[in-house]
Amino acid sequence: MTQPLRIALAGLGTVGAGVIRLLDANGSLIAARAGRAIEVVAVSARNRSKDRGIDLAPYAWEDDMTALAMRPDVDVVVELVGGSDGPALTLARQALGGGKALVTANKAMIAHHGMELATLAEAHGLALKFEAAVAGGIPVIKGLGEGAAANRIERLYGILNGTCNYILTQMESTGADFGGVLKAAQDLGYAEADPTFDVEGVDAAHKLAILAALAFGTAVDFGAVDISGISRIRAADIAQADALGHVIRLVGQAEVQTVDGERRLFQRVQPVLVAKDHPLAAVDGPTNAVVAEGNFVGRLLFQGRGAGDGPTASAVVADLIDIARGNAVAPFSLPVALLEKAPAADPGNRLGRHYMRFTVADRPGVLAEITAAMRDAGVSIESMIQHGSPSDAGLDPVLVAIVSHEGPESAVAAAMRLLEGSPSLAEPPLVMPLLG
Amino acid sequence: MTQPLRIALAGLGTVGAGVIRLLDANGSLIAARAGRAIEVVAVSARNRSKDRGIDLAPYAWEDDMTALAMRPDVDVVVELVGGSDGPALTLARQALGGGKALVTANKAMIAHHGMELATLAEAHGLALKFEAAVAGGIPVIKGLGEGAAANRIERLYGILNGTCNYILTQMESTGADFGGVLKAAQDLGYAEADPTFDVEGVDAAHKLAILAALAFGTAVDFGAVDISGISRIRAADIAQADALGHVIRLVGQAEVQTVDGERRLFQRVQPVLVAKDHPLAAVDGPTNAVVAEGNFVGRLLFQGRGAGDGPTASAVVADLIDIARGNAVAPFSLPVALLEKAPAADPGNRLGRHYMRFTVADRPGVLAEITAAMRDAGVSIESMIQHGSPSDAGLDPVLVAIVSHEGPESAVAAAMRLLEGSPSLAEPPLVMPLLG
Repeated sequence: MTQPLRIALAGLGTVGAGVIRLLDANGSLIAARAGRAIEVVAVSARNRSKDRGIDLAPYAWEDDMTALAMRPDVDVVVELVGGSDGPALTLARQALGGGKALVTANKAMIAHHGMELATLAEAHGLALKFEAAVAGGIPVIKGLGEGAAANRIERLYGILNGTCNYILTQMESTGADFGGVLKAAQDLGYAEADPTFDVEGVDAAHKLAILAALAFGTAVDFGAVDISGISRIRAADIAQADALGHVIRLVGQAEVQTVDGERRLFQRVQPVLVAKDHPLAAVDGPTNAVVAEGNFVGRLLFQGRGAGDGPTASAVVADLIDIARGNAVAPFSLPVALLEKAPAADPGNRLGRHYMRFTVADRPGVLAEITAAMRDAGVSIESMIQHGSPSDAGLDPVLVAIVSHEGPESAVAAAMRLLEGSPSLAEPPLVMPLLG
Repeated sequence: MTQPLRIALAGLGTVGAGVIRLLDANGSLIAARAGRAIEVVAVSARNRSKDRGIDLAPYAWEDDMTALAMRPDVDVVVELVGGSDGPALTLARQALGGGKALVTANKAMIAHHGMELATLAEAHGLALKFEAAVAGGIPVIKGLGEGAAANRIERLYGILNGTCNYILTQMESTGADFGGVLKAAQDLGYAEADPTFDVEGVDAAHKLAILAALAFGTAVDFGAVDISGISRIRAADIAQADALGHVIRLVGQAEVQTVDGERRLFQRVQPVLVAKDHPLAAVDGPTNAVVAEGNFVGRLLFQGRGAGDGPTASAVVADLIDIARGNAVAPFSLPVALLEKAPAADPGNRLGRHYMRFTVADRPGVLAEITAAMRDAGVSIESMIQHGSPSDAGLDPVLVAIVSHEGPESAVAAAMRLLEGSPSLAEPPLVMPLLG
């Protein structure tokens, strides 16, 4: 058996501690599978003395995490600090620049700087791996970049944020509103104290941008992801979706559209009404799921726990085993120079049915105004339901939910523009597509 | 870019032709991902002149497929002939013995001779890959052997035969009996002219034995798989399962049980009543799905098309891309010498609820006899339903369906033994566990 693979670990939060626990618990099995031991040599974190339930005595300690990248006794730096820039990025650059392979769980950093880091890794002939950055323990980076590598992937979509999925399924089962469920999720540790990145869809968008690059062979383009989150979804929307045979999920979708011979990239994260018989409707709680459609393999579904120390550590160590085995795959499955810079697609010609929810002042003519806008924009109405009335809601605004027949997204957008600033509307309309 | 990876293809049925079509359609993408072109150099099949819709002119032809293994211009032999022994096995041995890597879709050969071939591959430092042998295009061999490699896998189960799943879901949706649905499936090409290997569970058992070895680090032990098929399932069983909130699926299950410090391997393929809210219940038609539970990653689900030329070719070419990239993983993720020879587990102490269906002569005392056997064997009855009666079924036998409370499988087996040979039973009882 060859030399151990020597690891430096930056960041000892739940995932970092999980990696140490995993290597302890399954060490001999991992060494047998990898063909060599995987040994943590040095660690760094903000606070050395914090009780993490693990013994740090066997490992060298570095107060300055960038020193990990300089140690001659280290083969791979594992970055579990987080944040798109700052110390994590500095460490990543120094590791790859200094001849160390890099494994990271940092979706924000890969979404923002993945191209730069992949270029650096390629220039130095080093591995850059980030299975843990997307969908926790689900081997979807490997599944797309290797398992489905023979395919032209045409479409990709999935549930990429466990916090949002937990909140939405809790809203579904309890009938409670967003705020209350978020608070309960925070108390249980399922949502961060500042939940913005999760509930506003940014975290899912980081992951989507990474998956899209892998799947389509395009350069990562996080800036082009069209993002909306779940914070505006109400119990009434969930109830309305239910009555329509749907559930609401935050779905990331990406596809390549070919327009006049030019490939254009569509990337969006938004809440979607998912038909109850669709596989994504059964994805409950903090579970993640990714569907990819390839031109030969057809539809593949990968599902599992999208977060948590165990699943994330499993993905980090899978990357380490790959490196120990000497398995080299380009970070995005293609050399960086071949990753296509596809312009963003115009979503307007996407066809679909849409759910539109209006919060309206309860006064005469409101429905006429809304339906006139639909007519003028060419949106055909399949069903309309008005919730609440002056008698039971007093002066409160009333909810009107409309489902359109299949039609272009541009028509729905045009209808919304016609209604923009209308004094009849208490807030901007909420629009969600239906996924059948 | 380095030299092309040169392939010889044995077998030009739907999968072989699919591989050629796939390499044609996606060739430049595959070359970019693999870092080198993948080129078919030579082919062999039984009939040279058959019209397969592909042009064989670019490839050297060998009448004797074993000659493919001897060609100096070939790096990898792709075996798509099928059959556990015979020409396929001869070719596999000659390829690996003669210094060629081997890629195969042949589940029967790997289930029966996987250890011998893995030993041969290891001795010669060659790749032996068989992603296409299990679950068609789903990258589950890669998912278990690499993606989940950091985990001790504790349990594995799934829907591994598309023909059975198609038949069962058709019986569900049409209410028709097994024979009629099988006939229709044969007419549509979803079932073979001789469907025995599929409907009697042998094909699923081949796949289960391969997955179990990969997941648990045990030697492949196909002979120890306990197998029953779906040919005895009636429309009445499907209706009864439905009334109980379940569907019937042919499920392969494997787990390691530790008894007195010794690891024992449980492997079984059988029809199972799956609760409608379980992920496997939503697996319809020819789809396959595999669930693996790891000690850190938790539950992973892989789902996709389990057969057909496109998905199977996708898996074959994924293996070729791995070889072209130089990615070396032991065929069963561990060196052969480390694969444990685990004895078969005694299934008797498995706990569960069971569905038992009796076909009884309609005469006094039959129910008393059955319920007495349950009582004497210690099986507690949760529900019992009798279908049919003399008035509407004339002299036909009557169906009695019993569901037990949770209890050991050994008690159910004991009850069945007590009833063995009883003149009250028109045929042996059909027993299926419930999966919740």
